Amino acid sequence: MSDAETIALRQAMDPDWPALWQIIEPIFRAGETYALDPDIQESTARHLWLEAPSATFIAESEHGDALGTYYIKPNQGGGGAHVCNCGYIVSPQAQGMGVATRMCLHSQDEARQLGFHAMQYNLVVASNEGAVRLWQKLGFPIVGTLPDAFRHPRFGLVDAHVMYKRL
Amino acid sequence: MSDAETIALRQAMDPDWPALWQIIEPIFRAGETYALDPDIQESTARHLWLEAPSATFIAESEHGDALGTYYIKPNQGGGGAHVCNCGYIVSPQAQGMGVATRMCLHSQDEARQLGFHAMQYNLVVASNEGAVRLWQKLGFPIVGTLPDAFRHPRFGLVDAHVMYKRL
Repeated sequence: MSDAETIALRQAMDPDWPALWQIIEPIFRAGETYALDPDIQESTARHLWLEAPSATFIAESEHGDALGTYYIKPNQGGGGAHVCNCGYIVSPQAQGMGVATRMCLHSQDEARQLGFHAMQYNLVVASNEGAVRLWQKLGFPIVGTLPDAFRHPRFGLVDAHVMYKRL
Repeated sequence: MSDAETIALRQAMDPDWPALWQIIEPIFRAGETYALDPDIQESTARHLWLEAPSATFIAESEHGDALGTYYIKPNQGGGGAHVCNCGYIVSPQAQGMGVATRMCLHSQDEARQLGFHAMQYNLVVASNEGAVRLWQKLGFPIVGTLPDAFRHPRFGLVDAHVMYKRL
């Protein structure tokens, strides 16, 4: 497949949902990184990932293969609406290509363009060590750790981090 | 009015909504403590406070006056569903009576009975100093501070705290 140079990002639209769901479903079903019911219905997931957010993006190879996806949305309403939240998922077939890095950097640019002043990850599961390290490398300090806040299906109770970056 | 000894807490039901809304509306409209659109519709507020949560409580004086209200709900789904979130509002007429303390202690008991293992406050506005101090006194450490995460209508950008207690 392609290297990081040839990853293209574009806004995802309704017809992209089947490709997104193929990437998202195994991650949601596994229940190891997202604090969502692993039995989530596809329609609920579609609302959450594609319909409710401010914008959703798809990462594609030069051949049009879906490599990953992310959403961006306000993390809170009212006085908290200038802080956004994003969720990222990389296809298992596209691991190690720098897709997560590309998406995270892209999301920060998008967030600024959408008028957000900061980005917050509310619950980064501590056992997802690769993600924690990557977000730190990309400028997100751990601002707090929630002890035993996540029940991992294999590891049991694990900590979760709140990570936050000014944009 | 009554003192802390005579505050009664009971589960709020549909017919209690007008009394709850009378307490809630000015707080939501002020936009100083809850990260919600100050122009929130009553039906949205009702869903948020009374319908969506696991349970909603009303604090009453011995004369049946509504003194405050709180809700309790899972803070996340899936692997995060064992951590609850609560929101508390005290009537302006009932300040200084210990209503918030009573509600917070009551909510911790309720949370345990509902099977929650921890309680998290996601965004405690730092300028709400009384609340920050009270939650700390009641066993909630600040696990992290989100810089400039809340736009206060009078003070501008202020920090917000994430507070978390194991139950």
